[in-house]
Amino acid sequence: MTETIGFIGLGIMGRPMALNLVRAGYPLTVYARRQVSMVPLLEAGATGCSSPAEVARRSSIVFVMVSDTPDVEQVVLGDEGVIEGVRPGAIVVDMSTISPSATRAMAERLREVGAEMLDAPVSGGDVGAAAGTLSIMVGGSEDAFLRVRPLFEVMGQNIVHVGDNGAGQVCKACNQVLVAQTIAAVGEAMLLARASGVDPAKVREALLGGFAGSRVLDVHGRRMLESDYVPGFKAALHQKDMRIVLEAASELGIGLPGAAQVTQLINALVGQGEGDLDSAALHRVQQRTHGKA
Amino acid sequence: MTETIGFIGLGIMGRPMALNLVRAGYPLTVYARRQVSMVPLLEAGATGCSSPAEVARRSSIVFVMVSDTPDVEQVVLGDEGVIEGVRPGAIVVDMSTISPSATRAMAERLREVGAEMLDAPVSGGDVGAAAGTLSIMVGGSEDAFLRVRPLFEVMGQNIVHVGDNGAGQVCKACNQVLVAQTIAAVGEAMLLARASGVDPAKVREALLGGFAGSRVLDVHGRRMLESDYVPGFKAALHQKDMRIVLEAASELGIGLPGAAQVTQLINALVGQGEGDLDSAALHRVQQRTHGKA
Repeated sequence: MTETIGFIGLGIMGRPMALNLVRAGYPLTVYARRQVSMVPLLEAGATGCSSPAEVARRSSIVFVMVSDTPDVEQVVLGDEGVIEGVRPGAIVVDMSTISPSATRAMAERLREVGAEMLDAPVSGGDVGAAAGTLSIMVGGSEDAFLRVRPLFEVMGQNIVHVGDNGAGQVCKACNQVLVAQTIAAVGEAMLLARASGVDPAKVREALLGGFAGSRVLDVHGRRMLESDYVPGFKAALHQKDMRIVLEAASELGIGLPGAAQVTQLINALVGQGEGDLDSAALHRVQQRTHGKA
Repeated sequence: MTETIGFIGLGIMGRPMALNLVRAGYPLTVYARRQVSMVPLLEAGATGCSSPAEVARRSSIVFVMVSDTPDVEQVVLGDEGVIEGVRPGAIVVDMSTISPSATRAMAERLREVGAEMLDAPVSGGDVGAAAGTLSIMVGGSEDAFLRVRPLFEVMGQNIVHVGDNGAGQVCKACNQVLVAQTIAAVGEAMLLARASGVDPAKVREALLGGFAGSRVLDVHGRRMLESDYVPGFKAALHQKDMRIVLEAASELGIGLPGAAQVTQLINALVGQGEGDLDSAALHRVQQRTHGKA
């Protein structure tokens, strides 16, 4: 079966992902709310559309890469949304990071009109998007996953089918819970080393080889040592993702006190005007709040 | 220079470490508070002594591997302690995990009688002690470190000279801060996945390949999936180490809210009679306290 592919949302993440699909030889129809965002794709050979519905009418697989839950709901269910044009048998693949429960509700709405949905949030940032090395966590049916996998392989490297609709978003939420808290824990270790008069670079080096070793200690530990907070992954986006995590915890009736605590650091960082820094900059809040003068 | 070596403290960690020294061909004099603990070493060819002071009289390098700050102070500074027999130019190497500030004070006392001290706490547990694969974090002078390094290499693999007296203990404290919080974060991710009806084994697998990847997610994540809490590293010992961390934070005047929070989980686990389980069992407290029924 030859797929016809659409891509909606051409921002800092969507643009390089869509470009990778075009460059891999897939004909693409695209839509972005801001027309100017479409220009690089049109120059690369994609066809522009005037609405999500029009993209859907022309596509058997429709990718969506926007910011937050309401944005995806607008694109999929809103006026001139995907649902108004989607073909029976088509697959809508939402690669944004949004609410797992909202994802399940949208999948149900799409099922009613004969379409399938995959949730496929990513990690790896705009660097991973450009390089085609994203991690992709997928929820939805096995059949839909297998149909879309060749396209995922153009955009990413570590591609895991986690479970049914919503499971990709749950997995991404778990990722953010783990990354945020590991950043904060590395930051506390740095705080303790510095206040004790011990070189935190030596501590990072010693710990990397042992049981405390992690990619966060490696990458974000170096950021903290060098005060280099060029993103990477912006704190404002991590804040949004932690909001999704804590809303899910509330819906589910579970307590995530560690996630709640680290979210306060990210909230403060964003509130202090530094939301455009990499989220490892939460170490700055730790230094200002809990470190030595 | 031919070193004569003593070893004080022959418990679950000290015994296999001392045995590795004997097996590597070093003549060893040993002391343990409980005489029966000396038997395996005497059988292996070590010479038993009746006090820490006597070990010190016979040794140019004296290892100490006991439980907690007061134990080390008793062995080094107490009645018939190391300080009563220590030779000028000898090195006392404390491999226990204890207070950094108490370590600095003891190093000063030993300096007054012409001896040096190294703090050299380890990570890797009794498995690493038996296999000679411990991580060893060393504080003290470069000269003393270089003299003892061949012996460290018999006991461990990842051996880092972190800084001056106390720096090894600070590094170990940082290690425990990081490991405890990463365990708790992995536990929260598992809680979120399970409550969402998503297979936590799939989530672990997906996250291991990406930015959330860590040794704790690998090893302790599997423990949590299998409810396999055979230590490993006992929660009661992790509780002791977190007490050292939080006392250091108090002395230094810094805030470590993440470390404080995870300590509460470990406190509860020990209080619920499960202090002999691996510290990853703090996930049980998370499940009982914050998970779904």
